[in-house]
This record gives sequence, C-alpha cells and structure tokens, in this order.
Amino acid sequence: MNRSDISPLTVNRLSVYLRVLRALEAEGVERISSRQIAERFNLSAAQMRKDLARFGEFGIRGVGYDVLHLRTTLERVLGLDVERSIVIVGAGNLGTALARFPGFHTGRARVAAIVDIDPGCIGRAAGPDGGLTVRDSVELETIVEETGAEIGVLAVPPEAAQENYEHLVRAGVRAVLNFAPVTLREDPTVRVKTVDLLIFVEELAFYLV
Amino acid sequence: MNRSDISPLTVNRLSVYLRVLRALEAEGVERISSRQIAERFNLSAAQMRKDLARFGEFGIRGVGYDVLHLRTTLERVLGLDVERSIVIVGAGNLGTALARFPGFHTGRARVAAIVDIDPGCIGRAAGPDGGLTVRDSVELETIVEETGAEIGVLAVPPEAAQENYEHLVRAGVRAVLNFAPVTLREDPTVRVKTVDLLIFVEELAFYLV
Repeated sequence: MNRSDISPLTVNRLSVYLRVLRALEAEGVERISSRQIAERFNLSAAQMRKDLARFGEFGIRGVGYDVLHLRTTLERVLGLDVERSIVIVGAGNLGTALARFPGFHTGRARVAAIVDIDPGCIGRAAGPDGGLTVRDSVELETIVEETGAEIGVLAVPPEAAQENYEHLVRAGVRAVLNFAPVTLREDPTVRVKTVDLLIFVEELAFYLV
Repeated sequence: MNRSDISPLTVNRLSVYLRVLRALEAEGVERISSRQIAERFNLSAAQMRKDLARFGEFGIRGVGYDVLHLRTTLERVLGLDVERSIVIVGAGNLGTALARFPGFHTGRARVAAIVDIDPGCIGRAAGPDGGLTVRDSVELETIVEETGAEIGVLAVPPEAAQENYEHLVRAGVRAVLNFAPVTLREDPTVRVKTVDLLIFVEELAFYLV
C-alpha cells in the first residue's frame, strides 16, 4: 500500500475511529460490532468496514472487533505510536497559543521549539509554564537538526507564509501544518495541511438553519 | 429531512465539496462529472453522489453537475447564504488571534464582539485593524442581544470552559465552537463543536510513517 494513495478524508475517518475506540476502551468495552459503533457514534458501518479492510483483517463476523487490538493497530497505521516533534514558526498570538496547547505536549506530539524573526520577542518565555524560549528564525536549520522536529507549524502572517514554508523545507521538516489563509506552492516532498478555521463555523452553521 | 440526523462527518464532506466547487468556479469550469471531481480531488465519487442525493436531484447522467447551481445549493444547505455573527469569549493569545483571523471577517462569518473577565484587557483594541474593543464578560447577555451573535467561541482555559459555555447558553447563542481541551456537559439546545488541533497533527503523522 502506498500511503500517498490514501486520501486525507480517509485518514480523517481513521482518526475518528481511533477516538471512538479510545472512548470505548475508557468505558471498559472489549468487543464491539461495526453496527454498534455506527449506531452509537452516528457513522457509516459499511464505510468503516471498507476503510479498515485497507489495512488488514479486523473483526470476526458475528463477534465484532477487539477494541484494544484495533486501537493499537490504528495508532500504528496513523503513525501515532511514536511522538512527533514540532517546531512553530511565528511567536505572535497564534504561535504562542499553539505553543501552550496541551495536546501539543502529550506523548503523541511535542512542541520542541518556537522561532520568530522579531528581535522584540526572541528570548521570551513560551510554551506551558514558560518551558520554551523563543529562538531566532535564522537558527531554524540547527534547531530542526538538534530537536529532530518532523512537523513545522506556520503561524505567520499570510504574506510571510510562502517564504517561511520554503525555509522549513530547507531546514528538513517532513510535513507542515499551515495556519496562514493562503495556498502554498508545495514542495513535492513535504506534505502541507492548511487549517481553515472557517470550516468549523460552516459545520455549526448547518445546524443553525 | 431532520438536520440533526445528518452526521458531522457528512457535513464535513459537504463542506469539502463546496470548497472544490468554489475552486472549479474560479477556474471557469461550468459542468463536471462526479468521476472527474473524484479523480481531481481524491474523493469517492460514489460517496459524493450519495451525500448529494440526500438534498435533492443534482447532476444529469452523462452531463454532470452544473457547478454554479450545485455551489449555491450547497451554500444554502450548509446555511452559508447568510452571514453568521460570532462572539469570542476570552481575549488571551488564542482569542486575540481568532478575532483577527481573516476568515472570521468575510461575508460568511463575522466576529461581532470579544469579551474577557480580566480588567487588564477590557477596553483593549482587538480584531483586524483594532476594529473591536474587548468588552466585559458581564455584558455578554446584552452583547448577544445587540449583535444577534449566533455562535459563541470559547477561547478560555480548560477550567473556565464549562462555566463560560453555560454563560453563552444563558446569553442566547445557538452554537458553540470550543477550543478548550475539555468535554463540555452540553445543553441539548446548543450544539457544541470542540476543536482538537491534535487531529491535524495526526493527519500529517500518517504520511510520516
């Protein structure tokens, strides 16, 4: 299986299944059928069986899925069995908020560094409990090498996004999470996910009609 | 059709189709088949036809979809033909970043107000070009009434999220976008969408394996 053939929508669904399985595990559920999952979490059972079938044989007809086994397998499939190291570019309001985000300091992801070009904020404490210091963007190559950061987060103004993306590519990150509302000219070797917060508003607007 | 029977995953997909149609329209494409859309944007043609069929008859066999018609219909279905007014609770780094987010100042969504409890930040300029002033949280009821805000955004620390959610419910918003990493005890009349930024990292991690 070539991973780049798997669409982002499929990966999103796998991530949803993982969340569901973690919730079930926390409740002490050991076995569950795709139909039961579908009913409880408002998902499509057929879609779920199809998605999972791409990654192996799970579930026994009439018995269902082994929750623990499927959860650990999905974590491995999603690449979540190792901690991902993150470098944030931009120490403005958004970058600072992201550096403190608790989800970015779990066993699954960790903010290893935050950089900016503004001498006024270089050296300032950042991250949870001030555990990080804003460093100079010119050190990005060294920082990526030192920390082994694989994911770069772009929290810069739209007009600075492309140039900082290219800097991250040169520095050697393997994927970029872009919060700037622009479409980047992508390097084929570095996958970009642009986060459009408006999509969440759109999702809510549907239920306001 | 009862809107609450439509799952958030389906709404997400409709939102993706809308983005695709807007991109096609910008390129001057007038007609396109579900198969062509699927190939270009790495989506499932069957899923797309099934999703759209829930909202009416679109597309003519052998001719495809009328891009403009389908785009405007999807906007209506998604409740995006009217501008949604937003009130942000919490004027820290995240709230301030969200108040400036360009997508929240389009014809589709607009930040009408930002509030905080901290006297140190009440009265401070916020929003793009300082077009908003941080107001006192105690005024929330009045603000929601004045602005007609339908969506509340929670940008507060986890321990303050539940209490501020309840305040938003009392003030009369109809939906809440929650950035605090907590599960809220939900009021049945006010839909909550909790944004977990870790999901984006998980999506990228898949391609790093």
